Amino acid sequence: MRVLGVDPGLTRCGMGVVEGDVGRPLRLVDVNVVRTSSHLSVPERLVSIERGIDAWLDEHRPDAVAIERVFARSDVSTVMGTAQASGIAMVCAARRGLPIALHTPSEVKAAVSGNGRADKAQVGMMVTRILRLDAMPKPADAADALALAITHIWRGGAQARIDAAVAAAGGNRP
Amino acid sequence: MRVLGVDPGLTRCGMGVVEGDVGRPLRLVDVNVVRTSSHLSVPERLVSIERGIDAWLDEHRPDAVAIERVFARSDVSTVMGTAQASGIAMVCAARRGLPIALHTPSEVKAAVSGNGRADKAQVGMMVTRILRLDAMPKPADAADALALAITHIWRGGAQARIDAAVAAAGGNRP
Repeated sequence: MRVLGVDPGLTRCGMGVVEGDVGRPLRLVDVNVVRTSSHLSVPERLVSIERGIDAWLDEHRPDAVAIERVFARSDVSTVMGTAQASGIAMVCAARRGLPIALHTPSEVKAAVSGNGRADKAQVGMMVTRILRLDAMPKPADAADALALAITHIWRGGAQARIDAAVAAAGGNRP
Repeated sequence: MRVLGVDPGLTRCGMGVVEGDVGRPLRLVDVNVVRTSSHLSVPERLVSIERGIDAWLDEHRPDAVAIERVFARSDVSTVMGTAQASGIAMVCAARRGLPIALHTPSEVKAAVSGNGRADKAQVGMMVTRILRLDAMPKPADAADALALAITHIWRGGAQARIDAAVAAAGGNRP
């Protein structure tokens, strides 16, 4: 199974492709961050993100797309752009008929680290270990996109374990 | 000048096309609401909205697109879907190279009624009068989309009047 994880954002949109199955070693296929300049208008930035995601879907042909779920109560200064970028990612995937799943940050943290409240560094470290990389993917958006893809593959077989870890962390699922 | 106004929403996305110039009577070209079922997934709903907006851009070939500006502090239950729908509208217009403007609800209310705090009924009544319609456009999303298009045309020549009315209403511009 090949999964594209998308950590949506207007300034940096992380995209990570991971291949593998539950119970077997996972493999990094590719990772990238679409960056858009704040000098461009929001519509122009969204079109750049759309092009970046479409190009990656063409190149890597994933079986599914995992996108971070954005909450209305997130950081107010960036939440609109994040929501819009996530909507673009959804449309890019849905136009191709790909299955789409949204995972919350807590679910992703719990899946890769066993701790629904893990910090960025812990998530990055676990992604590095899980994919047997030589160095931690940078920036954090790249690591988060890979963590989303890993979560998606593992949730197939490890839903109970993730739910337990999220609950143990006093999880903030909707 | 022909303007497409978009009142973004996941359940109902209003689209109104108005033609005219500052200082001359404006004309309703067409008005419609794209509805999407809550039984569909959010990605499927966003793709429906994209198709609806693209079809209207093909059919009516506006010179500009005016979209309601969504605020992070809007109604939490719907703001994510509204933000995503507005992002889709922006991308549809930007892909065609059309000029895009965002107008706040206060700006629109002030432009059509002279009162930045006008209610839905007042906005609908003024839209009906301005476009010399026989009946008020329904639902409110349709009237709001037309009000956005009217605002866009009038702001060309009446920015000062709008700003004054918004300020008089204790305007909530960002």
